[in-house]
Amino acid sequence: MIKSTKRVTAAVPRTDYRSTLSGTDVLEIFYDVYETEDLRAVPEVNIVFLHGTGMTKSIWEWYVKYFHKQIQANPEKYQYKLGKLIAVDQVNHGDSCVANEGKLGSIFHWIDGSKDIIKICDVELNPPKQNSFNVLIGHSMGGHQALGCGILSPNLFQLIITMEPVVKMLNPPSPKKITLLSNNYFNAISNMVQDTFATRDEYEEFMRKRSFWRNSDKTILDTFCDAELIKRGSKFHTKTSKEQHLIGYMCLHPYAYWLIDNLKWIESPVICYVGGKSKWCPPENYQLLQDTIPHYKRIQIDNVDHLMNIENPNVIGPMLLGHITKKLQSASVDELHNNRDQFEPLYKELVATRVVNKPKSKL
Amino acid sequence: MIKSTKRVTAAVPRTDYRSTLSGTDVLEIFYDVYETEDLRAVPEVNIVFLHGTGMTKSIWEWYVKYFHKQIQANPEKYQYKLGKLIAVDQVNHGDSCVANEGKLGSIFHWIDGSKDIIKICDVELNPPKQNSFNVLIGHSMGGHQALGCGILSPNLFQLIITMEPVVKMLNPPSPKKITLLSNNYFNAISNMVQDTFATRDEYEEFMRKRSFWRNSDKTILDTFCDAELIKRGSKFHTKTSKEQHLIGYMCLHPYAYWLIDNLKWIESPVICYVGGKSKWCPPENYQLLQDTIPHYKRIQIDNVDHLMNIENPNVIGPMLLGHITKKLQSASVDELHNNRDQFEPLYKELVATRVVNKPKSKL
Repeated sequence: MIKSTKRVTAAVPRTDYRSTLSGTDVLEIFYDVYETEDLRAVPEVNIVFLHGTGMTKSIWEWYVKYFHKQIQANPEKYQYKLGKLIAVDQVNHGDSCVANEGKLGSIFHWIDGSKDIIKICDVELNPPKQNSFNVLIGHSMGGHQALGCGILSPNLFQLIITMEPVVKMLNPPSPKKITLLSNNYFNAISNMVQDTFATRDEYEEFMRKRSFWRNSDKTILDTFCDAELIKRGSKFHTKTSKEQHLIGYMCLHPYAYWLIDNLKWIESPVICYVGGKSKWCPPENYQLLQDTIPHYKRIQIDNVDHLMNIENPNVIGPMLLGHITKKLQSASVDELHNNRDQFEPLYKELVATRVVNKPKSKL
Repeated sequence: MIKSTKRVTAAVPRTDYRSTLSGTDVLEIFYDVYETEDLRAVPEVNIVFLHGTGMTKSIWEWYVKYFHKQIQANPEKYQYKLGKLIAVDQVNHGDSCVANEGKLGSIFHWIDGSKDIIKICDVELNPPKQNSFNVLIGHSMGGHQALGCGILSPNLFQLIITMEPVVKMLNPPSPKKITLLSNNYFNAISNMVQDTFATRDEYEEFMRKRSFWRNSDKTILDTFCDAELIKRGSKFHTKTSKEQHLIGYMCLHPYAYWLIDNLKWIESPVICYVGGKSKWCPPENYQLLQDTIPHYKRIQIDNVDHLMNIENPNVIGPMLLGHITKKLQSASVDELHNNRDQFEPLYKELVATRVVNKPKSKL
């Protein structure tokens, strides 16, 4: 398996003028692409992974390796192969945050993240290959952005899997419809986020004992800690700055209202994993998704919390693989990019369907 | 003034699987860029022009020359200069239609046209320059697509001017919410559209006497007829095929419902020109725009019909220039891409605004 780290120009302009410090700033977005060689004549599945607030592309490496190992070990069971597996650092996270230093403003409109994903896919997954199939997997804020991709580019992903997607939170009312956090809540979050450390030991101690990620699977946390560390002068830092991390929490509203309003337009099937132990999203969040997304399936997973993707990969990994396998079994010719249409009969059908033998005024 | 004809890859994938004949097809989009040299230290205005169904980029050349001449002749009056003026052939029109032959399917989702415009702007107008300002001008279907750009990329255009934008038509009800046209209406339209001629004279005679464009301004029609002609073997053809032209009329619905649902999210100021003599769009169309677009201004123009842009350039040209000039006079630092923010005070303000001194549960 070959891993390449690449970058593209992020979507320009950003949706809010305060997203960059200068109106002429252009952000960059970093992502990892994992590719394997598999010569079987079977459908090819590309997968894009979107992290939640504070996390980075590195947390998905466990899944990439797991998927690869399972498929390689069971070619009879998995009648498909992996194409490109792409894990992205949002513009204000990880490697992207480092590259965009001095440009990032005080607003992060989550849907700009969806637009960035579409730009990456334009480079990596287009033109689509025959017999290929694209899956989008997003956790928390990344789940929100995955749904945004489903709205903005309806046929880009043939399956969207969200884990604890944050869409509707029970925010206190505010005249400007902005997210309001109580002091207590904000302070509690702030204490779980630090970005500067005197020593590497201090960094490791904080990340493993006091950060949001302290209950992570050891392999995932090891990878994350290694990838997220940067040394500047004598100090150790997380690549994602504390301010940009906290901006994520403060910028759900008013921007999420656009997503909420557009969920009904999502055409891809959406599977939603909900943590049985999680209290991060209120039940109203999942009720909204259930009520508005046309092809929606909720999967409740007992004994996992909001951070199921980093805390319980042994539960989540097999589920993801199972859902991808199942969807592929019923994929249509269109979804696999195998259609080869003839124009004339389609045009005749269009006219036959849309031109009717009645005067307009009487219809 | 230098004119270049360029092309980019259109948005991939298209929004409807029937938009291309093969799932792996990638369309191209052709556009003209007009550039002038003006060394004054004044704001620079870029303008993108979107044609209606059946027309092409060539119809805007009159306006490009008019704007250029007026500004050059009156530098005191026009305290701005022209940057890039871009006129686009939609994927199934003009030069794009020729390039995409054998790939175009039976559906044209109008909003895909908006996505194509955003792709062109990403190449031509990004990164935005300091002291620059983008205007989008669209007629009929192009007006619809201009509004679509306002939704999909809220800060790309600082002013959107639509002429007779087609959004809400009084279609007869249909179970699938598709556009239904009566036989009589469809036949009447079909008779105004021909794409194959035995001789050039036959072509010229049809275009100038019996086509939709027969009442056009002579200069515009001359340019259009020259640009739209293509010879294949012994026959003369319009570049836009008859079928693709008619597909435009048949594909308003169900796709327009997304636009209708999203008009409320348009942040740019929108000016809407309505022809006093036009019966193409019903009054309900303009009432909808008035009711839903936040910054909307309607301008009724007496004695012009739906095709005001090609029939009455002497009326429309000065109005466009006037509205651009006026908007520029009140443009904000953000709209001119001149902002140079400091992160720290903005971040402090964000926290001060969004973190409140009350327990969450009691708010």
